[in-house]
Amino acid sequence: MGLFSNEEFNSMSDLLIEQLKDLYDAEQQLMEALPKMADAANSSTLKDAFSSHLEQTQGHVARLEEAFAALGLRAERQTCKAMKGLIAEGSDVISAKGDKAVRDAALIAAAQRVEHYEIAGYGTARTFSEQLGLPQVTSLLEQTLGEEKEADEKLTAIAIEKVNPKALGKIAATA
Amino acid sequence: MGLFSNEEFNSMSDLLIEQLKDLYDAEQQLMEALPKMADAANSSTLKDAFSSHLEQTQGHVARLEEAFAALGLRAERQTCKAMKGLIAEGSDVISAKGDKAVRDAALIAAAQRVEHYEIAGYGTARTFSEQLGLPQVTSLLEQTLGEEKEADEKLTAIAIEKVNPKALGKIAATA
Repeated sequence: MGLFSNEEFNSMSDLLIEQLKDLYDAEQQLMEALPKMADAANSSTLKDAFSSHLEQTQGHVARLEEAFAALGLRAERQTCKAMKGLIAEGSDVISAKGDKAVRDAALIAAAQRVEHYEIAGYGTARTFSEQLGLPQVTSLLEQTLGEEKEADEKLTAIAIEKVNPKALGKIAATA
Repeated sequence: MGLFSNEEFNSMSDLLIEQLKDLYDAEQQLMEALPKMADAANSSTLKDAFSSHLEQTQGHVARLEEAFAALGLRAERQTCKAMKGLIAEGSDVISAKGDKAVRDAALIAAAQRVEHYEIAGYGTARTFSEQLGLPQVTSLLEQTLGEEKEADEKLTAIAIEKVNPKALGKIAATA
């Protein structure tokens, strides 16, 4: 969240809008980062997971635009500093050397931290929206929250079943 | 994670140790931040939650030291840039103006993003440790992971039942 600098917190509606602006920026930062993560991945399964999450992320941006519209607002970004940090760390992995499968495991570690940032952010915004009695916005946020959780679980499965065993030298085949 | 700059990823053991150094730094950053979050909270329930999580966090630091010892290593910090960003955002909330209950809701939003960073970090480290066949380290990480998840759920409950309804003007009593 970059949303709190010099902010005044006067109402829960204001706070919901700030959360939406933060997420709108975070998702667009992620849209730039995911193709680089996909390029850097060695495992074809991991490459595909990053590419398919990019498509989902485009959908998340569109849903946030719908949420702003439902509130009678134009979609607006507010720099999410935490996402900047998270993505910077992903970039460090991309430029690191070493064993390809171990690098894949490190890429997943970075990506799951990003997913969890989004799970926390959408979870908070969904709760605010629900308690404000905004079912349309709540439903949009709920759908994306579900997809972020699924993306996180998918990365866990890829790590446990494919990338980590290869990095541990337990399987030799291309994961 | 600040763990990846100029790193070489040669083995999963190296990657586990990097994760532990990252978490060891993150927890100590959090130990400095939590008393400020507790001071800034208006709700006594939220104040108590931050204070009790500080005690838990001291335990998490001790467990990481045990994990390093179990690996025959001295505990070492490696700057966690993402946690720096997350905590800087918490500081922005602390210095913001506005309605006290809405500020509490914003404090919880920031704190849950921190919890989710830790859930992702401990989840990754626990999986690495488990797959490396290190039951003692795995058990230490598993215990902390459980407490981070509980802390996150506790914050959700405080938000939904106490802080948000007050911020929405639905209850007037001190939450």
